[in-house]
Amino acid sequence: MSLLPSILAKREGRALDETQIRAFVTGVTDGSLPDYQISAFLMTIFFRGMDRGETVMLTRAVAESGAVLDWSDLDRPTADKHSTGGVGDKLSLVVAPLAAVLGVAVPMLSGRGLGFTGGTLDKLEAIPGLRTRLDHAAFRRQVSALGCAFVGQSEDLAPADRRLYALRDVTGTIESTPLIVSSILGKKLAAGPRSLVIDLKVGRGAFMPDLAAAKALGRALRETAAAFDRPCSVIFSAMDAPLGRAVGNGPEVAEALAVLAGRGPAGVRDLSVELAAEMLRLAGASSDREAARAAAAAALDDGRALARFGEVVDAQGGRLGEPAAGWGLPAPAHRRAVTAAAAGHLPAPDAGRVGWLAVELGAGRRMAEDGVDPTAGIVFRRDWGERVAAGEELAVVEGCDAARVERAAEGLARILAPRPEPEPAPPLVLARLDEHGFRLGPV
Amino acid sequence: MSLLPSILAKREGRALDETQIRAFVTGVTDGSLPDYQISAFLMTIFFRGMDRGETVMLTRAVAESGAVLDWSDLDRPTADKHSTGGVGDKLSLVVAPLAAVLGVAVPMLSGRGLGFTGGTLDKLEAIPGLRTRLDHAAFRRQVSALGCAFVGQSEDLAPADRRLYALRDVTGTIESTPLIVSSILGKKLAAGPRSLVIDLKVGRGAFMPDLAAAKALGRALRETAAAFDRPCSVIFSAMDAPLGRAVGNGPEVAEALAVLAGRGPAGVRDLSVELAAEMLRLAGASSDREAARAAAAAALDDGRALARFGEVVDAQGGRLGEPAAGWGLPAPAHRRAVTAAAAGHLPAPDAGRVGWLAVELGAGRRMAEDGVDPTAGIVFRRDWGERVAAGEELAVVEGCDAARVERAAEGLARILAPRPEPEPAPPLVLARLDEHGFRLGPV
Repeated sequence: MSLLPSILAKREGRALDETQIRAFVTGVTDGSLPDYQISAFLMTIFFRGMDRGETVMLTRAVAESGAVLDWSDLDRPTADKHSTGGVGDKLSLVVAPLAAVLGVAVPMLSGRGLGFTGGTLDKLEAIPGLRTRLDHAAFRRQVSALGCAFVGQSEDLAPADRRLYALRDVTGTIESTPLIVSSILGKKLAAGPRSLVIDLKVGRGAFMPDLAAAKALGRALRETAAAFDRPCSVIFSAMDAPLGRAVGNGPEVAEALAVLAGRGPAGVRDLSVELAAEMLRLAGASSDREAARAAAAAALDDGRALARFGEVVDAQGGRLGEPAAGWGLPAPAHRRAVTAAAAGHLPAPDAGRVGWLAVELGAGRRMAEDGVDPTAGIVFRRDWGERVAAGEELAVVEGCDAARVERAAEGLARILAPRPEPEPAPPLVLARLDEHGFRLGPV
Repeated sequence: MSLLPSILAKREGRALDETQIRAFVTGVTDGSLPDYQISAFLMTIFFRGMDRGETVMLTRAVAESGAVLDWSDLDRPTADKHSTGGVGDKLSLVVAPLAAVLGVAVPMLSGRGLGFTGGTLDKLEAIPGLRTRLDHAAFRRQVSALGCAFVGQSEDLAPADRRLYALRDVTGTIESTPLIVSSILGKKLAAGPRSLVIDLKVGRGAFMPDLAAAKALGRALRETAAAFDRPCSVIFSAMDAPLGRAVGNGPEVAEALAVLAGRGPAGVRDLSVELAAEMLRLAGASSDREAARAAAAAALDDGRALARFGEVVDAQGGRLGEPAAGWGLPAPAHRRAVTAAAAGHLPAPDAGRVGWLAVELGAGRRMAEDGVDPTAGIVFRRDWGERVAAGEELAVVEGCDAARVERAAEGLARILAPRPEPEPAPPLVLARLDEHGFRLGPV
């Protein structure tokens, strides 16, 4: 069946029906549609959009393009957290075990990084021995036993999304609300959690640069999830500067471990508590947001979340060491300090620039085939806006390649050049969208 | 070099520069760009358009993607005629030899039909023995000797257009002004005539349904041609009903021969005279439009145009017979008359419907790989709007396949059902665009 009539209909601004959308996704999945028609169709959707009904149909077709997991036999409610991607975003590593110890099962499917956005799988694989390829049976056993597992998306879940995303990535069709919604929710519906908290990143280090556009995407995500009877909250969080003080796979695991141990940067801790509390609330494990936040904070402070993370790592073959020995994470071969050329205030660095610096350093991928250096990364020593003295250490750049470490340190020194005045730091949670509507601020 | 930055720039509405457009066309020609990026880019151009400068750059790049013919050593001026495609459009067969006997060389490159639009090569190949594959040297010799040759576009002329057109055809990106302009003029610039008359078909049997859209395309064609110092006139002609009384390859050759012999339907003759006269005027072979029309009419009436057509057919290996013996064209195995079910006025049939009926009959192609039946076609017996009696023969359907002839005759009977009142016939020439601007009517 040719896609041409559907391309022409959408091109002229007409809504597509279920038959047309199903035929499209089937042709994507079974390979019968050629790439060139799919990409022309994706660009048409970019320009013409899709209404709510079309978006729901596309999401359903993507979800049902492969296996669909069912967790209804678990003794606990299920929830998941999804981030639209940022720099220094290690929240999944904290949030999943944190929600798990508080009675919510988190069947989390994670991805790898591409471009300046990191991926949870890459971070976890900095832990020696840790495996992220679990078959469905092992995944189910571990979620049942520990409430949490970190696995890569298997080939048979939402296979249509894999081909569509690969084409979108190279044809300039990433930034389309219906395509983003059907990609995110199609995968989540296949993975099967009953409720979903979305961490929608906003700012120069996110693919949504401003809150207005992010709000429209958030509404589309929530409304589409509602059509599948999945409660969904969106937390709009700032991604102008990197999240926390560590960027890079190994360094981010270390920072996540510090937060799980009740320490670590306030921003990472606060946002982890916020996301875990919302998961508890949506899943019905806590009816009160304040109580949920308090429970999450307590589980970080009393060591339960860290212990659960350790059990999950053990179950997946990973080996963690003592905190004093850098948790047993591989040590970088090269380190280079970045110091302040003059006294002043540390600027909040552009997350996008820092992210690309980390990619150049070897922490991320330019192309899907690239490998990553688990030791490569940047650790900031001070918070944005703080007053620093000339010569003071502002950050450390690490990695296995001396020349790359040197180059990245030079680039970072330019980014971190102290300024005469402190810049005001924006709040980390910009807004939220839940069953009470959209509200600005972290309320 | 990736096309992605150009896709993104155009997607955001920015104009592309010469380097980006050259790189695109080079990547299309040498095969280094993948189909899926080209088709996403074409759809982006469909939605965002191109300004005049971009259109000129794209046209130049397409023209220069292969060999460029140069006719400056001929002792006569060169001109060409291009039709945007219609049903029953056999004008090239008349106009090329007609202009040639009046002192203008016509190095005409023709195409094959696809969909309901016929192709000059298919029509000519209904003549037994006629070859349309001439190499550049033979093409040059024949144009020099006879002022006219009918050849298919060789592989090495504007090769970028071949790949682009094939992709546009299957991705819903045909109807884009800059893509149409660069395709038509890119090929014409490569073929080398110094001036160009465009027969821009308007109506339900053309890809331009209304005059407003056609006018915009006509202006873009004329302005782009001007940037290459090529005089270009556009004649906007009606394509609501088929042109003339014959549709189908063999039947259209017979009708063209009748017009070349000074007979045939008035519409085909008048439009042939109009187009040939404009070619003479643009090429400088006649400074006065009225004189040019008179010269063209005379060359049809005194047999010179027919004689020249015969010489061209001879030179290309074709064999024509006596008019009384159907010019030696292959006879259809099956014929079926369509008669009037009741008295009334013959309606002007929808050219699109008649065109698809002819395709079903075997006269045209649904896909580029399909073959055609040279004998398949429809010959109308009366003019649109004429009063007919019940049982009177309105048309004959012909072809090699009895079942198809039968089906087409049934479809045609529905289309030709007489009406109580005559419909007013629109003028054949709707408007023209030349150095004096745009004017309605055939002036």
